[in-house]
Amino acid sequence: MLFSCQPEEVPEQIMDINSPDGRIHLEFKLDEAGVPYYYVEFDTMRIIDSSSLGFEFRNMPPLREGLTVRDMERQSVSESWEAVWGENREVLNEYNELRVELEERETPNRIFELYFRAYDDGVAFRYVFPLQDNMTEAVIMDEHTEFNLTGDHTVWWIPGDWDIYEHLYNETRFSEIDAIAKRDDPNLISTTIPENAVNTPATMRTETGLHLSFHEAALYDYSGMTLRISTDSLKMTSELVGSADGAKVKTATPWRSPWRTVQIAEAAGDLIESNLIVNLNEPNKLENTDWIEPMKYAGIWWEMHLEKSTWGMKGGRHGATTANAKRYIDFCAENNIRGLLIEGWYTGWEVWTEPEERIDAFDFVTPYPDYDLREVVRYADEQGVDIIMHHETSAVIPRYEEQMDTAYALMEELGIQAVKTGYVGSVIPEGEYQHGQYMVNHYQRVIEHAAEHQVMVDAHEPIKATGKRRTWPNMMTREGLRGQEFNAWSAEGGNPVDHLPVVAFTRMLAGPIDYTPGVFNLKMNPYQPDNQVRHTLANELALYVVIYSPLQMVADLPEHYKGQPAMQFVRDVAVDWDESHVLNGEVGQYLTIVRKERGADNWFLGSITDETPRQFDIPLDFLPEGKTYQAAFYYDAPDAHWDSNPTAIRITTQEVTRDSTLQLNLVSGGGAAVSLMGME
Amino acid sequence: MLFSCQPEEVPEQIMDINSPDGRIHLEFKLDEAGVPYYYVEFDTMRIIDSSSLGFEFRNMPPLREGLTVRDMERQSVSESWEAVWGENREVLNEYNELRVELEERETPNRIFELYFRAYDDGVAFRYVFPLQDNMTEAVIMDEHTEFNLTGDHTVWWIPGDWDIYEHLYNETRFSEIDAIAKRDDPNLISTTIPENAVNTPATMRTETGLHLSFHEAALYDYSGMTLRISTDSLKMTSELVGSADGAKVKTATPWRSPWRTVQIAEAAGDLIESNLIVNLNEPNKLENTDWIEPMKYAGIWWEMHLEKSTWGMKGGRHGATTANAKRYIDFCAENNIRGLLIEGWYTGWEVWTEPEERIDAFDFVTPYPDYDLREVVRYADEQGVDIIMHHETSAVIPRYEEQMDTAYALMEELGIQAVKTGYVGSVIPEGEYQHGQYMVNHYQRVIEHAAEHQVMVDAHEPIKATGKRRTWPNMMTREGLRGQEFNAWSAEGGNPVDHLPVVAFTRMLAGPIDYTPGVFNLKMNPYQPDNQVRHTLANELALYVVIYSPLQMVADLPEHYKGQPAMQFVRDVAVDWDESHVLNGEVGQYLTIVRKERGADNWFLGSITDETPRQFDIPLDFLPEGKTYQAAFYYDAPDAHWDSNPTAIRITTQEVTRDSTLQLNLVSGGGAAVSLMGME
Repeated sequence: MLFSCQPEEVPEQIMDINSPDGRIHLEFKLDEAGVPYYYVEFDTMRIIDSSSLGFEFRNMPPLREGLTVRDMERQSVSESWEAVWGENREVLNEYNELRVELEERETPNRIFELYFRAYDDGVAFRYVFPLQDNMTEAVIMDEHTEFNLTGDHTVWWIPGDWDIYEHLYNETRFSEIDAIAKRDDPNLISTTIPENAVNTPATMRTETGLHLSFHEAALYDYSGMTLRISTDSLKMTSELVGSADGAKVKTATPWRSPWRTVQIAEAAGDLIESNLIVNLNEPNKLENTDWIEPMKYAGIWWEMHLEKSTWGMKGGRHGATTANAKRYIDFCAENNIRGLLIEGWYTGWEVWTEPEERIDAFDFVTPYPDYDLREVVRYADEQGVDIIMHHETSAVIPRYEEQMDTAYALMEELGIQAVKTGYVGSVIPEGEYQHGQYMVNHYQRVIEHAAEHQVMVDAHEPIKATGKRRTWPNMMTREGLRGQEFNAWSAEGGNPVDHLPVVAFTRMLAGPIDYTPGVFNLKMNPYQPDNQVRHTLANELALYVVIYSPLQMVADLPEHYKGQPAMQFVRDVAVDWDESHVLNGEVGQYLTIVRKERGADNWFLGSITDETPRQFDIPLDFLPEGKTYQAAFYYDAPDAHWDSNPTAIRITTQEVTRDSTLQLNLVSGGGAAVSLMGME
Repeated sequence: MLFSCQPEEVPEQIMDINSPDGRIHLEFKLDEAGVPYYYVEFDTMRIIDSSSLGFEFRNMPPLREGLTVRDMERQSVSESWEAVWGENREVLNEYNELRVELEERETPNRIFELYFRAYDDGVAFRYVFPLQDNMTEAVIMDEHTEFNLTGDHTVWWIPGDWDIYEHLYNETRFSEIDAIAKRDDPNLISTTIPENAVNTPATMRTETGLHLSFHEAALYDYSGMTLRISTDSLKMTSELVGSADGAKVKTATPWRSPWRTVQIAEAAGDLIESNLIVNLNEPNKLENTDWIEPMKYAGIWWEMHLEKSTWGMKGGRHGATTANAKRYIDFCAENNIRGLLIEGWYTGWEVWTEPEERIDAFDFVTPYPDYDLREVVRYADEQGVDIIMHHETSAVIPRYEEQMDTAYALMEELGIQAVKTGYVGSVIPEGEYQHGQYMVNHYQRVIEHAAEHQVMVDAHEPIKATGKRRTWPNMMTREGLRGQEFNAWSAEGGNPVDHLPVVAFTRMLAGPIDYTPGVFNLKMNPYQPDNQVRHTLANELALYVVIYSPLQMVADLPEHYKGQPAMQFVRDVAVDWDESHVLNGEVGQYLTIVRKERGADNWFLGSITDETPRQFDIPLDFLPEGKTYQAAFYYDAPDAHWDSNPTAIRITTQEVTRDSTLQLNLVSGGGAAVSLMGME
C-alpha cells in the first residue's frame, strides 16, 4: 500500500504586512484552488482589489493555481543609505517585508517565493525562483501579474510600445485608454504597439484624489513589463515585451523577477519625493566611485536638430569639426559648464540608416577627417572641459558589443569619462525589441563594461530606468521620453505646454531624465520657424531644478546665450543635491520643487505650470534658521506668455531668510526659477 | 661805424585761426610793449579774454614782453588715425594751426615759437624753444600762461594739490573757489596745496550753458600744471608744480612745453566725445602692439580694503596666498575675466610705511613664503587667466628705478604682461612732488622700460593722463582720482552720490580711469558696515560703459557675485570699442553713453544719475539698419534707492532694432545698463 505524502501545510494564518506608518495594508492569500492573489488597502480603502499572480511557460505547465504555502516569514527593515549622487544624499529605506514560499501541490512540485514589501510610499513585490531539481531552465511565455483597480481612475499614460517610449502622454479615464490608436505616430521610426497596453510608470489619480503609479524596479535579465489594459474590468495585467521567437523571458533557476511597484501618495508631489524605486535596488557595487561626478554639459547636438549642421560630412555642414568643438569648449569654459558632448565625430553617418550598410556603419573610434579627436581632447583639457563621448549604435547590437571595449578603452586612454549612447532604429538582431530581455541584458552589459573603464553612461533610446543607479552609479541618466528635440522638428510643432508637468509625475518617477534643457531661442528662428518650445524662458530655467538629472544639458547654441542674463541661473544651478522637497504640484498642471546643492549652502527652486497662469506663495521655511541668502528671482515678465511672448523674463535679487515668503506669478506656460545662495 | 641789424619784421597782419567748422576763433597778438597774448571766441562770443603768455627763469631774464614776431605760418590738417585701443577705432584729427615765431627785441634775442591749434572741440597751444646759442640750459621758475575768463562760471574743481589728485570734486562759482580749505583731507597721507589753485582737467559751465574744460596734453619732461585762481579778476594762471630746489622745470633747448588745452562744447557730453587730448599727442611709437590687449580683471585687492585680509603676512590674514590666488583664478576662468591682479605678494609690507625702513622695503621679486609665484602663474595659465603684477613703490623712486628692469624681466620670463604700479606716500627723494618734473620723467621711464619688456601699465597714484596713450599704447589706464576704495574706508563713509557724474566730465576728459567698478555688495556687510557705495547696483553696472578704461576691474570678492544675475552684464560687457556716443549728460547730474564693441556687433549702454531720479527715452537709432539685437536691460527696480535699497535690480530681455526706443527710469543714485548683442 502506498501512502501519499503531502508536504506539511503551514497552519492557516493571515499573511499580510502594513507599511511602517500603518496606512498601507497588503494581504496575500491562496484561494481554495491554490490560486495566489493579493490586495492592497490605503487607510482601509481597497486600492488594488484581489489580483492574482502566476506564470505560463513554454514546455512546462503554468504556475497559476494548485499552490500551497510552504513557508512564510516577515521582517522589518529600517536603514538609511548614502547615495553616490542623487536628489537626496541620505535615503531612508524603511519597510515591512513578507516572504511567502509557495509550492505546487502536484508534480513537479515547483517552488517559488513571493517577496512583498510595504513602504510608507507604496508597495512592491517580486517572484523569486530558487534553484530546484524540478525546474532548471524556464521559458516564460507570460507573466500573469494582475492589478485590479477599484475605480475608473484618471490615468496619464503612453502606449505600451515595445520599441520606444517617446510618445506624448495621454490623460484619460482608465476605461478610455486606447493605446492602439497611438500606433501611427509620424515622428517615430520604430514603434511596436501590439495591444492595448501602457508603459510604466503609469500614474493615476482616483476619484478621492489619491495618487498611484505603477512601475517596476531592478530590471535585470528579464523583459520590460507593459501593463495590458482591460477597460471594462478595470484590470491591468503584466504583459512582458516579446522576442524574436515569441518567448518573453528565457531564464533558469535560480532567477527572480523585477519588483512590481505601486507608489501610493495622497499628494501628487509625494510620488516625486518617493524613493521606492531606488530602495528596491541593491547597494552600490562599484568599489571606487571617485570618477563619477554629476555635471552640466553643452553639446554639438542641438544645432543638428535645428538643421544648422549635420552629423555626417556630406553636404558641407558637418557639426563635429575641430574648430566648432573648440568654439564650444571656449563656451563651456566661460560658463562653468564642465562637459561637452560632441555628436557625429566618427565616420558612418552617411549610411547609418541604410538597411544594409547600417550593420557595420559605425566603429566609434574613427574620426572624420575634419575632426582631430586628440587635439580636441587636449584643448578641452587645457580649458578644464571634459569631452563626453558619443556612441550612436543605430541599434545594431552585435556591432556595438563587438566594438564597445575598444571604444571604451580609447575613452579611457583619452581620459573621457562619460558616454552618451544612442539606439535609433529597429533592433538588430531582427525580431528583438528595444524593451525585451535581449536589450535589457545589452544595456546592463554596457553599464558593466563602461564601469570597468570608469565611464559614466547617459543612454538615449534606453530601457526604462528601474533604480539601477543605486547599484551601478555610473548609470547616470537617460532619455526614454519625448525629449527636447521633438520641439525642433516634430510634426505637431513641438511638445505640448503641459508635457513636462505630466512627465515629472510619470516618466520621472522611474529616475533621472536627460531632457536636455536650456533652449533660450524658444522660437528657434531662423532655423525651425514652424516649431517652438512651448513654454516661457523662466519655465525652461526651472527645468534645471524640476526635471532631475545628474548630467544636465545646456542645450542651445553658444550664440543664443550671448547677452542673456538668465544664463546666470544656468551657470549657478547645481547638479547634485543634499535634499529635495516638492512644495506643490498636480499631475499635468504644475509643480514646484526646491533642492539644496550637495556640499554647499545653496538652494535652487523651480516651478512650472501648464497653460493656466498660477500664483503661489512659497514660504522659505525649508531654509535653516539664522542664515541669510542672496536670492535671485527669474520670473515670467507680467506680459510673458508661452506662445506670444515666451522670452519675457524679469530678474530681480533680494536677501532672504527662512522667514521670507516668495510670491510666484506664473503666466500661461510659465515658470519661475530662484537661486538662494548662502551668504558667508 | 657799426650798423645795428634788426631782424626784419613781418608786416602787421592778423595772426588768427578758426576751427574747421568756423565756430571757434583764436587770435594772437603782441601789444605795443611786445607782450604776447591771445584770446578765444566761440560764435563771436569771447570765452577767453586777452591772456598773456610767458616765462620766468632762474639766472635769466623773463620772457614776457619786448617780443617781436619773427615768422608766422598757418597750416590745416585733416587726417584720421586708428587707435590701438580706445573709445573709438578711428579718430578724426582735424584742425587749423598757427605757428608764431617770437624773438626778444633786445639781447639775448632769445627765440621761441607758439603753436596754436583750433579744433572743432577746442583750442590748444604750446611753447617751443628751438636750439639756440643764446639759450641752452633753462630753469623755469614760473610759466605765466593766463586764461582770463569772461564770466563767473560754475566750476567743478579739485584743489591744485602737488602730490595727489584724490580729492572730492567741488562745484562752486569761479569766484568762490577755495582750494586752501581742502588742505586737511583726513583721508590723504601726502597732500601739498601751496595756494589757491586747481588741478586739471577743470571743467566749467558758463551762464549761457557753454562748457569749457582746461587741461594739458603731452606732458613730457616738464612739471604738471595747476591753475592758480584769481577769484576777483576771474583769471587763471599756470602754476607749475615745484621741486626740491624751488625750480619748476629744468630743461635745455630744444624743448617744448605740453599743450595747454581748452575743450569747448555746447553740450556737456561733447566734452566726453572730444578727442582733443589724444589728437595733440604723437602717433604710436611702438612697433609691435600685438601684446597689448584690453581686458577685464579681478583682484586680490578689495578684500584688503574691506579688511578681510591684509597685504602683508603679519596678523595671519594674508590675502596673497597661493590658495586664495587659485580661488580667484577659478573665479576668473568661470566668468570670462582674463586678468587677475594680486597685491601684497612680495615681502616688505610690514615696514613699507616706516620712515626709515620704507627706503628698501620692496624688491618686487621676493614672494612671501605662503605665495608660490610660479605655481600661481602655472595654474593661471592652465585656466587661461593672465596674472597682473603689482608693484607698490611706496613712492621710493630710486629704489624702483634700480629694481624695475629686474622686476619687468621676471614678469617677461613668467609671461606676465601687465603691471599695476602704486606710489603711496611722500616722494623720495625728499622735496620732490608727485606731479613735478622729477616724477613726470619717472612715470615716463616706467612706460618706456615696461614697453621694452612688453608690459602694459596701470598706474595708481599716477601723474595725470595727458593723452600719451596714443604714443605709448602700453600706458593703459590709471587712477588719479578719488577711486572706489574710498567707499570702503573714507572718513565720509564713501564717495558722494554725484561723484561719478562729476568725474566723467572732469577727470575722465584726461583719459582712461581705473575706477575699479564691480562692487555688488554695496553696503559692504559685514566688513565695513559704516561705509557704502553710494549708488545702485544698476548704476555700478553702468560704470563699465560710462567710466572708460581698457583695463576694467571686477572688483568685488568672488563670493559676492554668487547667484547674481547682474553678473551676466559684467561677463558680457566689452572693454575695447569701435565707437562711442554720449547720448545725454549734464555735469554732476547724469550721463548716458553707448559704445560698440570693437570687432563685434555688440553694443553696451550705461546711464547714471545723481540723487535726482530721472527718466530718459533713448531711441536706438545709433544701431545699423536691418539688424536685430538681443537686448538685456539691467534697470533699477522701481523701489530701488541708492541708500535704502541699492541692490534692487530688475533685469529683462527683448529683441530690439534701431526703430526701438528704450525708456530708462533711474532712481535716486540709480543707473541703467543695457547689452545689445547682434543676432546672427
